Amino acid sequence: MRDEAMTNRTTAVMETIRSRIAARILVPGDRVPSIRSMAASLSVSPSTVVEAYDRLAADGAIRSRPGSGFYVSSSTQPFALAEVGPRLDRAVDPLWVSRQSLDAAPSAIRPGCGWLPPDWLAQEGLRKAIRAAAKSDTALLSDYGSARGLSALRSHLSRQFQSEGLNASPDQILLTPSGSQSIDLICRFLLRPGDTVLVDDPCYFNFHAVLRAHQVKVVSVPYMATGPDPDAFAKILIESAPQLYLTNSALHNPSGATMTAQVAHRILSAATAHDVVIVEDDIFAGFEPELSARLATLDGLARVIRIGSFSKILSPAMRCGYIAARPDWIEALTDLQIATNFGGPDALVTGIVHAAITDSAYRRNIETLRRRLATARTTVAARLEALGIRTKLMPRGGFYLWCQLPGRLDAAEAARRALECDVVLAPGNVFSLSGSAIDWMRFNVSQMSDALVFEVLRKVTSDG
Amino acid sequence: MRDEAMTNRTTAVMETIRSRIAARILVPGDRVPSIRSMAASLSVSPSTVVEAYDRLAADGAIRSRPGSGFYVSSSTQPFALAEVGPRLDRAVDPLWVSRQSLDAAPSAIRPGCGWLPPDWLAQEGLRKAIRAAAKSDTALLSDYGSARGLSALRSHLSRQFQSEGLNASPDQILLTPSGSQSIDLICRFLLRPGDTVLVDDPCYFNFHAVLRAHQVKVVSVPYMATGPDPDAFAKILIESAPQLYLTNSALHNPSGATMTAQVAHRILSAATAHDVVIVEDDIFAGFEPELSARLATLDGLARVIRIGSFSKILSPAMRCGYIAARPDWIEALTDLQIATNFGGPDALVTGIVHAAITDSAYRRNIETLRRRLATARTTVAARLEALGIRTKLMPRGGFYLWCQLPGRLDAAEAARRALECDVVLAPGNVFSLSGSAIDWMRFNVSQMSDALVFEVLRKVTSDG
Repeated sequence: MRDEAMTNRTTAVMETIRSRIAARILVPGDRVPSIRSMAASLSVSPSTVVEAYDRLAADGAIRSRPGSGFYVSSSTQPFALAEVGPRLDRAVDPLWVSRQSLDAAPSAIRPGCGWLPPDWLAQEGLRKAIRAAAKSDTALLSDYGSARGLSALRSHLSRQFQSEGLNASPDQILLTPSGSQSIDLICRFLLRPGDTVLVDDPCYFNFHAVLRAHQVKVVSVPYMATGPDPDAFAKILIESAPQLYLTNSALHNPSGATMTAQVAHRILSAATAHDVVIVEDDIFAGFEPELSARLATLDGLARVIRIGSFSKILSPAMRCGYIAARPDWIEALTDLQIATNFGGPDALVTGIVHAAITDSAYRRNIETLRRRLATARTTVAARLEALGIRTKLMPRGGFYLWCQLPGRLDAAEAARRALECDVVLAPGNVFSLSGSAIDWMRFNVSQMSDALVFEVLRKVTSDG
Repeated sequence: MRDEAMTNRTTAVMETIRSRIAARILVPGDRVPSIRSMAASLSVSPSTVVEAYDRLAADGAIRSRPGSGFYVSSSTQPFALAEVGPRLDRAVDPLWVSRQSLDAAPSAIRPGCGWLPPDWLAQEGLRKAIRAAAKSDTALLSDYGSARGLSALRSHLSRQFQSEGLNASPDQILLTPSGSQSIDLICRFLLRPGDTVLVDDPCYFNFHAVLRAHQVKVVSVPYMATGPDPDAFAKILIESAPQLYLTNSALHNPSGATMTAQVAHRILSAATAHDVVIVEDDIFAGFEPELSARLATLDGLARVIRIGSFSKILSPAMRCGYIAARPDWIEALTDLQIATNFGGPDALVTGIVHAAITDSAYRRNIETLRRRLATARTTVAARLEALGIRTKLMPRGGFYLWCQLPGRLDAAEAARRALECDVVLAPGNVFSLSGSAIDWMRFNVSQMSDALVFEVLRKVTSDG
């Protein structure tokens, strides 16, 4: 009896330490409370604590350091992203969709992924731009490039923004290795662990992943057909006092919705009143048939940071993103990019991107692509409708359809079953912080030309 | 008199808040202490605090939020890297050297930079590899690439490591956009703000910058001709209990020294006893005439993480780094890389790098380069010696010489003066945490073929 009580007390001490490690109250390298203080605080004998610590050390959770006590092992508690935040079903984990999409077998069909298939890209234009790079001057072949990135590309972006009504000098633009890196760099710059960030619900699932990596609190605002719900937005600013709002204004991912000018004005006014910085991710801008309202343009880059990239419209194989913001912020972001990546995107890649987007055929190719996508959206929506999968909002552009499955079907379960047939889907709740999109799914119409995908969808949505 | 006292008290309150913001005790979004509690803690009247807060709000340092008090403005205090850590003379700031090197005028001479000039690189090989990429299959042109990066390149690295006595399967290798990103990703994975990291003194200056960005404490161990001082190393592990040790074993930057097998064994034993993870940055490995001791090889990738890149030997314009580590760590690092960059290096770039390093001419080019560097090291050392600038240790390979200036000359001051003549130098203290390299300088022999550089050096070291 006495031994059993001792064992229970030992277990209790072990559990106390383990739960502090799990909650990151104790982190690797931290000294574990001394035997004496632990014994006192849990009202157990020192020998019970010694026994517990020895067992934890045997497990590798803590380690003794000669002469200085016990410490949390570094090997037991590195920062496994999968462990941060609520444990989700791996099939509704944002990283699950990313990894399945990236690592899918060549034979797999990927309606859940976020990019165009090879034959939808302007391959000849890309090859031509690469051949031009092979002949280009030596700087593109052998230098890191300037701290802010290729001047010609930044000037091109500056002129493009100007034509959209946004004044940003080339010096207010920083090139980055990708749209994701743009967000990551801004998070490093503006956020500290424990800060609060507002995202849309639904929103791009990797927003959740990158914010998790920065260990910030995430709150969400419902995204409607006209943009974020302005009343809910204003209420959240008061209740949660976020530092940052991260959104897509045009062709919102995953809903395909576009923010109206009225909503943009209300959102920006509320953000200004509460001193919230807005990151407007314009990654799908090139797919818009005509320009819609932009927070960055309304605001003139005072508190709005505009980011974007060429990965979606040009190619995900040669990535280059940008950040346009206040000059002093760009200066500080440049320092941060040097510290964490030495330079920005590869000089070679910025040269290829610049050659590709300034080629005379580029504009024509984009228009062809837009028309092809418009047809695909209509066709795929009709085929999904025939399966009872409803597109509530037909986007003005881009390749996403945000659809509701029939009969309150669990999309994560459907995605798991589809994967057995080599079809990678993107179930709704990976996009939804509130978990309110259980029966929704995002489809990429450009990845659905194989009729097999509809057969699999019929199977996973009918006999579920 | 009374008004003046009131003004002084108001100023005191303002300074209290300002100094807390500067010290990051208050960060953007934090609520400033309530008027009542601030008045009580500083023994001033509430009206004095109101006056002080109103003035701080007028300055933009804090903002009132209707109904909920005052908060630190996000716009006043983003994370300006230049403000973190002790304020240094900008000319001995690591970021100064990076930015001067990256943004130097085309006419500038850059003995302070860390890469080879265009005509030292195998330009024809690069152009050939790029042309091959333009003809390659569509995946390299239009896909993100797999989560860990191009399989053929990882297999190549795995075989190379095997030939060096290090077993690492291709799945234990993660490709990254650069050597710098490898370090950054590992810091995210293993470190938390306030952790302690051990570096060499001297060490690559951007180690200081990236660690500053992660807000960790940095301690340093003297680096000798045979590697880090093992006695000092063991002492620091006990006194400072670092989580991580970041080092170069072969052709150490900036000293050019190479760790001996005996030192490697002692360092690894001490790190094992104290459960310290080691990051071994092998970025200059390709320049070694023959293989020297490696911590990763001794350890078999248990607690040592090996990183490297192709930027130095192939080209900084098409960057690709790698991390080789324990399988479970690679798995977690892959998740983190997806969260922060979606994928790894550009698929196109990994294809070009793979083509370039597997080309039949590659090995011959490297050998030519090594011979050319050996000659340049001898020639430049002799020319520096003639100016009283001493190379204490002649490196076995690579392009750096770590030299002492004559007469206890301030290298930062010399660098400032050289910049007026369009010569970018790398003064010693940007490499030295202890600030003990005031009269040292790192020279890149490949960037010193223009005789002008020695004229400028004579000028800035003689009549200082």
